[in-house]
Amino acid sequence: MAEPLTLINAFEVPGEEAEQFIAAWEKTRDYLATQPGYVDTALHQAVMPGADFQFVNIAHWQTAEDFRAAIQSPGFLESAAGLAGYRPHPGLYQLVRT
Amino acid sequence: MAEPLTLINAFEVPGEEAEQFIAAWEKTRDYLATQPGYVDTALHQAVMPGADFQFVNIAHWQTAEDFRAAIQSPGFLESAAGLAGYRPHPGLYQLVRT
Repeated sequence: MAEPLTLINAFEVPGEEAEQFIAAWEKTRDYLATQPGYVDTALHQAVMPGADFQFVNIAHWQTAEDFRAAIQSPGFLESAAGLAGYRPHPGLYQLVRT
Repeated sequence: MAEPLTLINAFEVPGEEAEQFIAAWEKTRDYLATQPGYVDTALHQAVMPGADFQFVNIAHWQTAEDFRAAIQSPGFLESAAGLAGYRPHPGLYQLVRT
């Protein structure tokens, strides 16, 4: 079986909206964690002001198809409504060098 | 001792320049790996076209000061010269939610 894929999603979030963003992210995570192919997720926050992205989520999914099905599933839009104001930069990645 | 910090650096790289970018990244990695506080690094490549960032590097450093010292050290600019054409979006992060 292939290695899980890494979803990396960098979010543009103003400094003062950190708590609001985290609450919205948690709601989305709780929904996605119920979907087939979900492996894990880890939300990272910049430790100092000035980063282009205050938050970066690093998650794992079994396959690209699983991830796509999850974000096209009926409950996703409602679960992610709170994230709508934060511009995301998502991509599915594989490890190429260490 | 505090947990190592996570450096996340998303690079804007045109699709056709992947090999050139990887070679330049490897040269920079070889230099940074000699510096105090370096823990590890992992270069991720998008698995399909269309991601805003073809490459995202996820590394760990013992402290923010170690990372800053490394990129201000005399050998860094020369080692990283090949990356100059690729716009980076670096930040130091801590894990806040899983």
